[in-house]
Amino acid sequence: MQNNTPNIAVVGATGLVGRTMLKVLEEQNFPFADLKLLASSRSAGSKIKAFGMDYTVEELTENSFENVDIALFSAGGSTSKKFAPAAVKSGCIVVDNSSAWRMDTEVPLVVPEVNPEDIKLHKGIIANPNCSTIQLMPVLNVLNKKYTLKRVICSTYQSISGAGQAGVDKLLGELEGNKVEGKHQIAFNTMFHAVSESQEDVTEEELKMVNETRKILHIADLPVMYTCVRLPILGGHAESVNLEFEQEIDLEEIRNLLNSSEGMEVVDDLKHEVYPTPQSVNGKDGIFAGRIRRDHSATNAIALWVVADNVRKGAATNAVQIAQKLLEI
Amino acid sequence: MQNNTPNIAVVGATGLVGRTMLKVLEEQNFPFADLKLLASSRSAGSKIKAFGMDYTVEELTENSFENVDIALFSAGGSTSKKFAPAAVKSGCIVVDNSSAWRMDTEVPLVVPEVNPEDIKLHKGIIANPNCSTIQLMPVLNVLNKKYTLKRVICSTYQSISGAGQAGVDKLLGELEGNKVEGKHQIAFNTMFHAVSESQEDVTEEELKMVNETRKILHIADLPVMYTCVRLPILGGHAESVNLEFEQEIDLEEIRNLLNSSEGMEVVDDLKHEVYPTPQSVNGKDGIFAGRIRRDHSATNAIALWVVADNVRKGAATNAVQIAQKLLEI
Repeated sequence: MQNNTPNIAVVGATGLVGRTMLKVLEEQNFPFADLKLLASSRSAGSKIKAFGMDYTVEELTENSFENVDIALFSAGGSTSKKFAPAAVKSGCIVVDNSSAWRMDTEVPLVVPEVNPEDIKLHKGIIANPNCSTIQLMPVLNVLNKKYTLKRVICSTYQSISGAGQAGVDKLLGELEGNKVEGKHQIAFNTMFHAVSESQEDVTEEELKMVNETRKILHIADLPVMYTCVRLPILGGHAESVNLEFEQEIDLEEIRNLLNSSEGMEVVDDLKHEVYPTPQSVNGKDGIFAGRIRRDHSATNAIALWVVADNVRKGAATNAVQIAQKLLEI
Repeated sequence: MQNNTPNIAVVGATGLVGRTMLKVLEEQNFPFADLKLLASSRSAGSKIKAFGMDYTVEELTENSFENVDIALFSAGGSTSKKFAPAAVKSGCIVVDNSSAWRMDTEVPLVVPEVNPEDIKLHKGIIANPNCSTIQLMPVLNVLNKKYTLKRVICSTYQSISGAGQAGVDKLLGELEGNKVEGKHQIAFNTMFHAVSESQEDVTEEELKMVNETRKILHIADLPVMYTCVRLPILGGHAESVNLEFEQEIDLEEIRNLLNSSEGMEVVDDLKHEVYPTPQSVNGKDGIFAGRIRRDHSATNAIALWVVADNVRKGAATNAVQIAQKLLEI
């Protein structure tokens, strides 16, 4: 990008991810000339503190993007579908956190540690992957390069913040005795995401993970199987992962590869109860791996436990990192 | 057993599992002549209501088992190690819910739907398997008979009631603002069980599941891999299971096999949000399977979700069922 102090906008600035995007932009000293906070008419006029100033939230319209260079969208799929093209028409580059554009063949789907080169192929929109996908990709990528992935099995342990502030409020409300809305209680329980439209036996979340994994890693037929579960946890996603490789593995090397990878840290000493948890990664930008061990049920196989703050690395942080890469192009 | 109205004892009668044993004995109209409730000296003298009567808890001693025909033990491993042999010496048959005797080659480890014939081999003690093992065994057994198991991968979603009433109280206390004791918070978090003594990278719970699965199914080298996770759930264990088979599978047949198996029920209509959860199985004696689908990441593979009340089928109910089988021999 020729302009390295761009005008930026955050769309959906009042939501859980939008507010975290502002925090991350500030923490990372993201350079910009002007910042615009956009949201639906309902939130327009409200004030948000960022960078030590009070910003007034403006209503999102098709004309919001004049003179905006980069817009970070986190306002839901239908809003992205409607307004991202308008932003692009104004010459703005959109980094979109919704699922609206992720599988569009013209839209790069990017985890900066994994496929930063895809950013260059953008035609105005770059998609931020699903939270549960993002945290697994750097792990799969680094190990695939070394040993060639043969099969991926993953069962997720996802926090309710994946459903935004409304989800968090619902869980806390239930714990305070509120009546359960919907078919399944969240408190003290497990639930699955909504069924996908195209496959009756798979959830939307599981289908996203399958498709996005293959697109990000550029392995169209990678054998993957996901079971995604939502839990009474406020923030942080964990994943129980079983991997098989084509080549012979070395557990110590795997540990070193993961620990030395950008944005990743190995936290793994079971004997002393040291492993990452949703609580331990709260507010952190990295991806944390623990319980790294041989899976003796197959040849060249391992099991591990991958945890990240889903609102940070799984959403806001990854989007800001994509924007940072844009400045370097 | 020649006597079909035996004198019975419940050891650890004041604990979470002990109290549930009494409930299940009553619900199942378990025939007995006399009932003795035993516990440590701390609990001796307290009253427990069962079968419409007030029973006084007696202190457990080596002489407690005179004239007792069947004793259901749920008082921890060290108590079982110490008192089960004394009970056997008195001519009593012990059904033990602790892990103390499970891997003893002289002790049958029984899930009545799976290996009832092993009961006959007892020499005084019959072991009740670990909760997370029990609920998976009938699933594995019925599918193994039809298609021959090749590999089992399972990630568990376990409630804190696996740690007894103390665990439940700890979670509820944390939710009310109590200070976190120990390294990991239970509320809004995930944690692993204690590390095993023999293997630094595996938890006790995972090792139990590996060893017990192979012993119950009588497949000494079955490739199995478990990741056991404790969650902020009060009761009910769920398991995300990936199975590979030697023979070609038929999903409809699998559904029918599971649904028509003793003690098992298929609850599986994702489109209408129908699947078993820890909440939905609360207080039930059965094993519930949902999310039954092909695992396209391997040949002849499926994924499914198995849920049961860990205090019931995972402990008390299974022990009572073993005692019922004893009466039939």
